[in-house]
Formats: sequence, C-alpha cells, structure tokens
Amino acid sequence: MSAPTGDIGLIGLAVMGQNLILNMNDKGYNVVAYNRTVSKVDDFLNNEAKGTNVQGAHSINELIAKLKRPRKIILLVKAGPAVDNFIQQLVPHLEPGDIIIDGGNSHYPDTIRRCEELEAKGLLFVGCGVSGGEEGARHGPSLMPGGSPAAWPAIKEIFQATAAQVNGEPCCDWVGEGGAGHYVKMVHNGIEYGDMQLIAEGYDILKRGLGLSESEIGDIFTKWNKSVLDSFLIEITANILKFNDDDGAPLVTKILDSAGQKGTGKWTAVAALDAGIPVTLIGEAVFARFLSAAKEERVRASKVLAGPQKEPFRGDKQQFIDDLEQALYASKIISYTQGFMLMRQTAKELKWNLNYAGIARMWRGGCIIKSVFLNDIAVAYQKNKDLESLLFDNFFNKAVHNAQPGWRRIIAQAVLWGIPTPAFSTALAFFDGYRSEILPANIIQGQRDYFGAHTFRVLPGKENDRLKKDQDIHINWTGRGGTVSASTYSA
Amino acid sequence: MSAPTGDIGLIGLAVMGQNLILNMNDKGYNVVAYNRTVSKVDDFLNNEAKGTNVQGAHSINELIAKLKRPRKIILLVKAGPAVDNFIQQLVPHLEPGDIIIDGGNSHYPDTIRRCEELEAKGLLFVGCGVSGGEEGARHGPSLMPGGSPAAWPAIKEIFQATAAQVNGEPCCDWVGEGGAGHYVKMVHNGIEYGDMQLIAEGYDILKRGLGLSESEIGDIFTKWNKSVLDSFLIEITANILKFNDDDGAPLVTKILDSAGQKGTGKWTAVAALDAGIPVTLIGEAVFARFLSAAKEERVRASKVLAGPQKEPFRGDKQQFIDDLEQALYASKIISYTQGFMLMRQTAKELKWNLNYAGIARMWRGGCIIKSVFLNDIAVAYQKNKDLESLLFDNFFNKAVHNAQPGWRRIIAQAVLWGIPTPAFSTALAFFDGYRSEILPANIIQGQRDYFGAHTFRVLPGKENDRLKKDQDIHINWTGRGGTVSASTYSA
Repeated sequence: MSAPTGDIGLIGLAVMGQNLILNMNDKGYNVVAYNRTVSKVDDFLNNEAKGTNVQGAHSINELIAKLKRPRKIILLVKAGPAVDNFIQQLVPHLEPGDIIIDGGNSHYPDTIRRCEELEAKGLLFVGCGVSGGEEGARHGPSLMPGGSPAAWPAIKEIFQATAAQVNGEPCCDWVGEGGAGHYVKMVHNGIEYGDMQLIAEGYDILKRGLGLSESEIGDIFTKWNKSVLDSFLIEITANILKFNDDDGAPLVTKILDSAGQKGTGKWTAVAALDAGIPVTLIGEAVFARFLSAAKEERVRASKVLAGPQKEPFRGDKQQFIDDLEQALYASKIISYTQGFMLMRQTAKELKWNLNYAGIARMWRGGCIIKSVFLNDIAVAYQKNKDLESLLFDNFFNKAVHNAQPGWRRIIAQAVLWGIPTPAFSTALAFFDGYRSEILPANIIQGQRDYFGAHTFRVLPGKENDRLKKDQDIHINWTGRGGTVSASTYSA
Repeated sequence: MSAPTGDIGLIGLAVMGQNLILNMNDKGYNVVAYNRTVSKVDDFLNNEAKGTNVQGAHSINELIAKLKRPRKIILLVKAGPAVDNFIQQLVPHLEPGDIIIDGGNSHYPDTIRRCEELEAKGLLFVGCGVSGGEEGARHGPSLMPGGSPAAWPAIKEIFQATAAQVNGEPCCDWVGEGGAGHYVKMVHNGIEYGDMQLIAEGYDILKRGLGLSESEIGDIFTKWNKSVLDSFLIEITANILKFNDDDGAPLVTKILDSAGQKGTGKWTAVAALDAGIPVTLIGEAVFARFLSAAKEERVRASKVLAGPQKEPFRGDKQQFIDDLEQALYASKIISYTQGFMLMRQTAKELKWNLNYAGIARMWRGGCIIKSVFLNDIAVAYQKNKDLESLLFDNFFNKAVHNAQPGWRRIIAQAVLWGIPTPAFSTALAFFDGYRSEILPANIIQGQRDYFGAHTFRVLPGKENDRLKKDQDIHINWTGRGGTVSASTYSA
C-alpha cells in the first residue's frame, strides 16, 4: 500500500459535507471523503467532485489508511447518536495525537463530554461550529473550533485557509476549551433567530402597516443594506422579496407562514434561563416561531378575535421608514448585547477564556449573521477586552441613543395598529429595564416575603435598625404569621 | 407497643411542614411529625404544636410504628436529593399499598421517575403540588396531587379536608398520573411569576409614569381588588404598599429591587421551550427577575444610558388608571391562556388526562394565584372541556376585546415614557400574533431555504406546478446553489 496522501478526512456527504470538501480541495488540501451509505461516495466522486483531487473511501479502514498523521477527521453528520456512533467506529483505528473534529450542530454539553472521553484515550477532539449554509461551506464558512487545545496547531492552517476571509483575516480562530466552539456556535444560531425575527417584524410593519408591496419593501431592504444594517440577512431578504414566481407575483407571498426550527435557537434560550441571563430577544424569536407554526389555530383565532380599527397612516412615510431602520438597528444591538452577556456568564462559570473580539471577527464573514455591525463589535472588544456590556461602549451607546426616538415611535404605532412586534418590544423593554437604577422588583420581593417568608434585602441608603445591611430580612406583614422563614416552599 | 394511632406522617418541620401539620390536626387528623434534625421535633411539640394531638417521632422506625396502615407519609423537604434520600430510608420499612407523598416543589421528571420506581416495588407514590405559602399551609392550601391513581382513595378525605374550601368545594382534586401533580404545580408557579411581574409593571407605571405615591397606588389596588382583578396577589400588594416603616415611609420603597427565584418559574419556561408552546409571558417574567438581580450593572448602566425626555402626563388620570386595569386584566388572560396551552400540549404528549376545570377550581383558593378570575376559567372549561384556547371562550373573548383599547394605550404610553413593560408588551404581541391569519414567518422560511436549503411549504390557495401542496419545496434562489436540501446544517 502506498504512503497516505490525505490531509484531512470528512465523513458525511450531505450538501454541507460535499461543499466543505470542495472548498478545502480548492484551497489545495487533499481530502478523503467517506459516507455511511457508501454508494454516495462514488456518486460524489463521479459528479460534484469530478476532476478534483478528492479521494474516496469505502470503509473506515480505507479512510484511516489514506490519511497522513496526525489524522484529522471531520464529522459532518446529524447531531446526536450518529456522532457518538462514528466516534466509536473511529477510535479503535486511531493513534495518540489523532484528531476527531465534529463539525455538526452538536449541543455543547455533548461536546464537553466527548472531549473528556477522547482526551482520556490520548486522542484529541474538536467541536467546531460551522456556519454559512451551502454557500458558506462551499466558498468560505465561519469556523468556530474549540476543544482540545493541542489540536489547534495541527488544524489551524487548513481551517483558517478554508474559512471566509474578511479584510485579509480568516473568519476562524481558536474559541476555547471543551465545548466552547459549539457553545459559541449555539449563541450564533440564537442570534441568527433573533436577526431573522427582527427582519420579519420589519417586513410585517411595512406590509400591513404602511401597505407597501414586496417589491417596494425589497427596495427598502436594498437601501438598508448600504447602511448600518449592511448584512447577509438583509441582503438575501431583499433578494427574496424581489424574487417573483412565474406569474409575476412575489414568491414569498406564497410561502406558508409557519417557521420551522431545529432546536439550536431553543438551546440558546434554555442556556440563558440556566445561566440566569435575560436573553429576551432570542427567547421571543423562538416563541414567535412556535406561534407561527400554530397556523391552523391562528386561522381559527383570526376569525373570532378582532383587532383595532385600522387607521390609514397619515404621517411622513419616509420618516417612518427611517424610524423603522433605527428600531431594527437598536433591537439588533440589544440582541447582541444579550448574546455576549450570556457568553460572558458561561465563560465565567465554565472557566473558558473566551476572546470576544475574536468571536465577533469569526462572525464577520462566512456565516449567516455576517455583517458590518460585527466589525463594530470586534472594535469595541479590541478597545476593551473586559467590556461589561456592549451598551457601555461609546459607539453602541451613541447608536442606541440616536435610535431611541424612532424605535419608540415604531413600537407605539405597531401597538396601536395591532401588528405584533415581540422582538422589537422585548428589546426596548430590556433597554429600559437595563438603564433603570430602580426596577419595581421591590414589589415582587415584598410579595415573596409576604406570602412565603422568602426575605428581602434593604436598598442601599435605606438601612435602619430593623432593615440591616447585607441581611435577609423578614417582615411580619400581617401581624399574624410567625417570624420563621420558609425553606421548602418556593416561588 | 400499643396499636398505631397516626393517620398520616410528615417529614420536614420547616414552616410549611409545621403549618400543614397544625392544619391537619385542626381538621381532626392525628399527625406524626418527624425531622432529620431530631431536636426540632421536640421544639415543635413544646411550642407551636403544644396542646394539639400531634405526635412526635424521633426516628424513621418510630414514625412507621406510629402510623395506621396503609401508611401515608408526606415529605416536605427540599426538592432534589433529599427527597430520594428519605424515600430510600422509608422504603425498607414500608409494605405494599403504603403511600409516600412528596409535597415539595419537585421537578416533574423526578416525580415521574420516583412514581415508576416505587410502583415497581408495590408501593404508591404521590407528587403533590402545595401552594399557599405559610398562611395557606396553616389555614387551607391548594393541593394538587398526582401519581399512583390507587393512592387517591386513601388520601382523598384527608387532603380535601385540609385544602382550602371555596363555595363549599375543596381546592384539591386528583390531577392525573405520574408527574401530573407537580407539573400542574410548576405551571401554577410560572403563572404566579407572571402575575407578580404584571403587578410590578402596573406599580411602576403608576409610580414613574403618573408620579403617584405608594399610598395612592395602594388605594388603587384596593379598588382593583373589588373588580375583575380580585385576587390574593392584588390584595397583598395593596397591603404591602400601605405598610409603613417606623419613620412613616412606605416600607416597600426600602426593599432592594433585586428579585430572587428558586427555579420553578424557569422550569415552566424551559418546559414551554421543550413543548414548542409560546408561553411568552412567563418567559419574560423570569427574564425580568434576572434583569432585576443584575442590580449593580443596572446602576452603572443608569448613569450612561439616557432615556427619553419625560413629558408630564396631561391626559385624564382616572381614564389612564382604568386603562391600566384593563391592560393588567388582558395580559393576565393571555398568561393563563398560554399556561393552559402548555398543559394541554404536555398532557397530549405524556397521555395524561388532565381535568382543566378541576385545575382551575384547585387554584381558585388556598394558593398564591387564587382569584375570582380562576372561577371564570373553571366555568369556561366546564362549558367545554375540550376548549382549544381560553380566547375561544365567549367570556374571555369579550373581556379581551373590551380591554384592548386601554391595553394598547398603556403600552404605547409606557414605550414613549421609557418605562419597561416586558410582560404587558409580550402579552399584546402574543395576542396580535395569535389573531393573525398571516404572520411574517414566510420571510423566515424564505431565508432558511435561501441560505440553508431548509425547504418550505406552499400557502393554501397558492399551489401551482412548482409549489405543490404538502411538499417540501426548495427554490434555487440565487441561480447558483444546487437543488439538494440540507440535512446537517441547522438554523
């Protein structure tokens, strides 16, 4: 048998796997392709990969034999048991220092576990977030690798060459230990849910509120794509809005308004709840997809639940559209602020040393949320790597401040029109709550102590003999209850 | 040794356990009290339980020996390992047909597991939601028992006698199999989080918006407590607002505005995300507590993030207060609608036969969310036990319809003032989304298909040769991508 010539192996020849292979091949790497249904290997070699240097493998043995050491094998298979299954198949063939890379959308706790298991065997494991869809995989995705730090030097060159490039910098850098790569990818996906929901709300306001056509709205998005909103999602939304069916009607008006999801947005919302961080915009975006999916119930509801009398819009349309642009921008700033708050908290808990500027740079190109905006975030974290919140950065502080009046006008108008804006509204509620020195949670604490003896703390500056600093205080509100505090009852 | 005389045992002498024992004693039952720290047993007998028929036990052996068969033992200990620990200690002493009742705030998956484990041993298990705090436990809580159906006849009399009574009906009935009792209690707690957040937002608007004093706001709550809002939480909020510290200042203004939580509201939000049901109001209520808890960060933010110029209110104050009442009422209807949607979905998945009218009746008294409102919900489900949504019931349909104009005015005003209303706003967004025959999720589906070949379905009535009914459709939007659809990339 001849000496192995494969630089890297890839298992899983669905569209993402195929495209990633062709991309790595273009960059000069020799890729060995394998798939569980082996006939797909030859199909791929005889069609999409025809004329390339891609090699096929028809068994795990053959795959291993064709790879140079340390072996690098990317799994691009369905997250879940399939990943564990392939790892089990691979392990007996591997030698210390070999690297398994999971490029699927695995849930980060699984990645933490797999990393520990493989390191215990002397192998290396990388959980790599891959974003960019078909196009990204083919021409340069955003790659977010994390896991065994010793793997990074061995895969850095090929990963950074394969990733998208922005201003000569690759959209790929080492994220951190254990499950950090997949965690950051999860947050990316959650943010993507949020961005998509914000765009959908903007479209809805322009359509149902101002009564504009898809073509007119498409033009607005094209214009926005040259502003602070410049981003892949705004760009493709313009294209989608202008894409007509054969009869000349905008195709988007024929798409069923029931949004699917595959769970990674939900994971982010659950992670936020677990971490105690108010990532409200992603939460609302996930819930909005659920509500959209209840299509038949909504159709029934629409027949029995009337909204407000719709007043025709009498204001300045262009001003309104500019306000909407600001509402979208400000809401987006809040969403990213929340996403970075979540990563910061999790990094603290799991002792990951996350490089926030690097994360923003990784997301700047190649992926679904790529945007000019992410460059501003990178700059903010470059200026101050310990930035507590994006809203404390001068640039974003000023941006939100300037956006505020329009943002408020849009929501107030949508509320009166009866057009739902769950993401715009929750972003503003977060902003107004975040900048509130005093929130009405004193009422909640009073209630909890009243009915459950849950105790409260005193507000700084209000201490006295019965309200002592740093003490859990219980008040006998009714004059009836005892002074013992609850330990089992929770609320 | 004499024949056992104990009707029921209770382990865990924190305030809830003590009060429940005294309550059962009042109703004529002989209760045997035990606690891990045994000295607490004697303390209790010599103090709170002095002069009652309560017996003490200083060991598990003694507890078992003092109970009539089938033995009924309530655990009121911290949810988690402590429950499993006591179950393990009890099991060797128990005989077939004996019943362990977990009255703590256990997470329902644990209850499902414990129920299966104990039934496999011939024992019976009940996971019982207990609500009402100190006062409820002492004078009549809401009890939500679920688990082994064979346990119900044995505990029915004592549980229904111990529970709160409303119009001669006990606030206790059999909820359902497995974890149903704790599930329903969890949703109850989630709804409680929502109700508390709504009240806090109402207070905030009256205080920061209208500039009213705590005493004035307390009077408004007292008045509201005679309206459709008549409820325990409104009542105690009025009392809290009118409770002055020794210096005459309202005590609530000295309470730190950082709300605690013990996880059951979070569980409800996670359960909603898992079930795919948009329980947005509870979600926002949980996130609002998180944001309140970030007190120091908020204080810093308040110094650098300015809000809108505050215009003094020039409208009709009483009209505004009436609008706010309607906003609170409508938001509450939405919250309960969402909570019942969640229970309905979970019952479907886990094949529980939940009695929704019964659940509303159980919550009508004894518990933290007790209200006149819950009677209206009971009536709605009595009229139609398969009611798809509370909003489809005539009473609630009309109530929301009438509340709508004021609800919208309040949110629009709060948005312009810069006062956060996350729960009011998300309730309205849900309502407007729910009654939307068409939502802008077509844009999201278009985007998902554009960047990830995730496919979409055609809107009914828009079918044609390439947009076929009931098919997953992929469009080659760019003219570049293939026609293969994604299988590993998720968004």
